[in-house]
Amino acid sequence: MPAQGGVAGEPDTSRHEDPAESVLLAERCARAALTRAAEPGDVRLGQLLAEQGAQWVYGALCEGRPLPGVGERRLSTWQTRIEEARPEEELAEVAALGGRFLCPGDREWPVQLDDLGEARPVGLWVRGRCSLRFAALRSAAVVGARACSGYGLQVAAQLSAELADRGWCVTSGAAFGVDGAAHRGVLAAEGLTIGVLACGVDRAYPASNGELIARIAERGVLVAELPLGAHPTRSRFLERNRLIAALTRGTVVVEAQVRSGSLVTARRAAELGRYVMGVPGPVTSQLSAGVHRLLREEGELVTSAAEVIELIGDIGELAPRQEGAVLPRDLLHPRCREVLEALPARTAVTALSLSRRLRMVEPEVHARLLELGTLGFVERQGGHWQLTRTCEDHQRVTERSLNCGDSVKR
Amino acid sequence: MPAQGGVAGEPDTSRHEDPAESVLLAERCARAALTRAAEPGDVRLGQLLAEQGAQWVYGALCEGRPLPGVGERRLSTWQTRIEEARPEEELAEVAALGGRFLCPGDREWPVQLDDLGEARPVGLWVRGRCSLRFAALRSAAVVGARACSGYGLQVAAQLSAELADRGWCVTSGAAFGVDGAAHRGVLAAEGLTIGVLACGVDRAYPASNGELIARIAERGVLVAELPLGAHPTRSRFLERNRLIAALTRGTVVVEAQVRSGSLVTARRAAELGRYVMGVPGPVTSQLSAGVHRLLREEGELVTSAAEVIELIGDIGELAPRQEGAVLPRDLLHPRCREVLEALPARTAVTALSLSRRLRMVEPEVHARLLELGTLGFVERQGGHWQLTRTCEDHQRVTERSLNCGDSVKR
Repeated sequence: MPAQGGVAGEPDTSRHEDPAESVLLAERCARAALTRAAEPGDVRLGQLLAEQGAQWVYGALCEGRPLPGVGERRLSTWQTRIEEARPEEELAEVAALGGRFLCPGDREWPVQLDDLGEARPVGLWVRGRCSLRFAALRSAAVVGARACSGYGLQVAAQLSAELADRGWCVTSGAAFGVDGAAHRGVLAAEGLTIGVLACGVDRAYPASNGELIARIAERGVLVAELPLGAHPTRSRFLERNRLIAALTRGTVVVEAQVRSGSLVTARRAAELGRYVMGVPGPVTSQLSAGVHRLLREEGELVTSAAEVIELIGDIGELAPRQEGAVLPRDLLHPRCREVLEALPARTAVTALSLSRRLRMVEPEVHARLLELGTLGFVERQGGHWQLTRTCEDHQRVTERSLNCGDSVKR
Repeated sequence: MPAQGGVAGEPDTSRHEDPAESVLLAERCARAALTRAAEPGDVRLGQLLAEQGAQWVYGALCEGRPLPGVGERRLSTWQTRIEEARPEEELAEVAALGGRFLCPGDREWPVQLDDLGEARPVGLWVRGRCSLRFAALRSAAVVGARACSGYGLQVAAQLSAELADRGWCVTSGAAFGVDGAAHRGVLAAEGLTIGVLACGVDRAYPASNGELIARIAERGVLVAELPLGAHPTRSRFLERNRLIAALTRGTVVVEAQVRSGSLVTARRAAELGRYVMGVPGPVTSQLSAGVHRLLREEGELVTSAAEVIELIGDIGELAPRQEGAVLPRDLLHPRCREVLEALPARTAVTALSLSRRLRMVEPEVHARLLELGTLGFVERQGGHWQLTRTCEDHQRVTERSLNCGDSVKR
């Protein structure tokens, strides 16, 4: 299987070199091409994929054959667009950007997206060093008005930074206003953030958020249903919102007017059985009116990260960390395992010092540490990282065994 | 029965000239004296009154006899204080102030206070031209921090003015901050407001709210469990809050820190089965933190008078008005009946023009109109008053009959 990721000349950081990878290239190419043909959230396409498989649908479109249940106009649009698809090249292009194309069935596929049923994504174009699945394991969405107030900016940034401090990933739409402030708050706290775009992951929209989007690609994860080069449209923004809702355990609306798009995200979250939360504001502000309406109906009032986590976190939220790792070491991605084994048994170290030791670029070390944190192997203390207790014991055993030349099975 | 109200030389506006008045003077004097002896909310006293009656308890105290279940220290305090009571003189004093002392059983006694059980007031010192019972029939409490922000002042005033515009009475504690703003908002909208004091109704506390308190006595109703001349104390403020909660259908907290006294009022309201509501604010403001906690627990989020009324109003809130009067005309207080019969069948008039016609002072006409409004006989349109539809028909019949010299029974 050809390598799917990594920057040329550097160690391949792809997630698809794993022989346990079960999705065939042909399937992957078919789905990648279909993201160029159909609009996100097309239920009929979802049904066809379930009934016939992606390769069959792709083949039918390429050969001009009709598709059952797809009207002439739509079929014609798909056929026209599929001609522009060059899936194998596009897979290489996204790999060159440090990305990949994910399919249902991939280890990295966040299974919570399957709650969308026939409307789930055909596939996801992803950029970033972190595993999307790990990132979304413990993630909350923070959304709100684009034309927000200073209060909204402050609250979004503060709340997101606090969530990051407590080991939670924050997902948003990389838009102006609340979204941007949320991402920035997380990045400032050196936490993990997912940006879900309504355009291709190689584009920056809005353009003036270009630097922010590049930083998310660098330090977090960028996600899009749209193929490389695609432009955003109004309906693509709405479909993007359903992804934000589905990826996360709960959606927090920070500021929203009565007809705001972020209330759509909240509604989708409710429909999917996710938690819906809102941060109140002055009743004299139209920007909080939408949130207040949400709170009067179905939303939970939250004023801090602690209150968000109380709702969406596991019972005894601290318990998993104290219990140690949730995944056996052997199932880790090799690169994660490298980082883990480089950590000293008892000392806290920085990502930078590890990167020197491993000769791995610091952003990647940082990303791996965040993944390991999500899985319970390491914990953060300010700018330093340390093994969790149970890991510590295992590590000492491993160190001793390595020194002695014995191999120790966990 | 000696006249209980009215200013000397003017028509007696007392509510006790009605021969249907069932509470004897002796009972009234006993209770009036007891408000000087015991602190508000004394449950043991409440039990004694239920078991033995007020006159028996009063007599026992005056004669130095022990009271069952009352310890020496408390008994001694009561005996000392009862020596200073001059009930008949005090009844005359409050009458001179345009007031009266109400007892359970009086027509004007708001029966919802009986929900307090053994902790209900012994009696109430009242000032104002409006009937307390009518005023409290459709009333909401608006309470909050004394050291509130400009936001709190604005919201309290605005909300209260809107409630008044919709025919609701606003009850509060005449304190600094939210209370004062609430009263002022109502008065500016020419509505009805009840001020519940923690001192005698002849005192102004805080002193700098003296003018406001005088205006409430003039245009609304002042209420206190404490006798004339009494000072406020911390416990008297807390007991005053239970009255605010009990008198009203629901309590709205506008701004409150985490340990605010207004949250006590909300808790008492909840215990009494009243609605509890809160107006949110910026989560960055400590002054809204108490409200947000309330909303996360038991309170309902409200942002406007419409939302308050939706909760505490009758089903089909407009329906009672459209159905016309809720009380047969004959049961009206004679002064109310005078005002009602002076209203033209179809024209809207001002309180001032009615007062000239009736040679009744304008504030009293206004107060009667507010009562008639509460009862469904009249409705307000800005600064003018008009008969409601069903009243209109009756009025035309009455006018014709008066012109013809016939008497028409309703």
